[in-house]
Amino acid sequence: MKQHIILGIDPGTRITGYGIIRYPLEPIDFGCIRPPPKLCLEERYRLLFDALESLIEQHKPTAIAVESQFVLKNAQSAIKLGMAKGMVLLAGARAKIPVYEYAPKKAKLAVVGTGQASKYQVQRMIQSLLRLPAPPEPEDAADALALAICCGNNLRSR
Amino acid sequence: MKQHIILGIDPGTRITGYGIIRYPLEPIDFGCIRPPPKLCLEERYRLLFDALESLIEQHKPTAIAVESQFVLKNAQSAIKLGMAKGMVLLAGARAKIPVYEYAPKKAKLAVVGTGQASKYQVQRMIQSLLRLPAPPEPEDAADALALAICCGNNLRSR
Repeated sequence: MKQHIILGIDPGTRITGYGIIRYPLEPIDFGCIRPPPKLCLEERYRLLFDALESLIEQHKPTAIAVESQFVLKNAQSAIKLGMAKGMVLLAGARAKIPVYEYAPKKAKLAVVGTGQASKYQVQRMIQSLLRLPAPPEPEDAADALALAICCGNNLRSR
Repeated sequence: MKQHIILGIDPGTRITGYGIIRYPLEPIDFGCIRPPPKLCLEERYRLLFDALESLIEQHKPTAIAVESQFVLKNAQSAIKLGMAKGMVLLAGARAKIPVYEYAPKKAKLAVVGTGQASKYQVQRMIQSLLRLPAPPEPEDAADALALAICCGNNLRSR
């Protein structure tokens, strides 16, 4: 069976979670990218982009999984989220790595078995699936790992 | 008086208009970036980003003006627009060029004298202000030139 290295990304305007796994299931790295909020917007997105390129350079993922959001409070937050997501797509395209999108519900379904799982349920199931010593923190990193696992399941079932 | 070279950008999910002026008022270049819609999303944003970097490399703008949208049909179009806008901010940050945002109304006000101007009024006023042989086409390029002029006015009045 072909081994995939999958980089999951949960992009956000303030904090972007990432999680890298070898599939089937082994954790490689996870955490979050949090550009200082006092920087101007373009500098924050540049830091996010640079951090994504570094992760790709370091771990050489074979696929990227990113969260797709459909419901948002307002146009401004949707545009800002889009800018963060744009950094993920660009980093993937420049490294010639395919980018797959999954709704949060799909990722929850993949790890907990229900699309309505709580954040904490996701963290606990990820801990169990990846045999981590503790639930992954912050939540955004757990969500990113869930996206990576969801992506791995999908690539396997092709 | 310090001369500014200003790159105006009207980002869009299918077509991104650009307009470059030397301020006070001389046209340098305008047009649009239109990645083939049949490409995957990340490849389209990569093409947009590469085109923006080429324009910056070629014309060495001292400022970038980008349209800020506040009202949008739905979250999906807002996220896609945000991804396009993210390319502009990243290209600016990587080239260390300040990026300014202006609402469409402000740009119309700057060139036509009213925020309620029609697309055609904007095109005709831009033609007149920049002494172009014809109204700039497409509309997106005219909007980008209006943003650049609006930005020039603002930088001058500082």
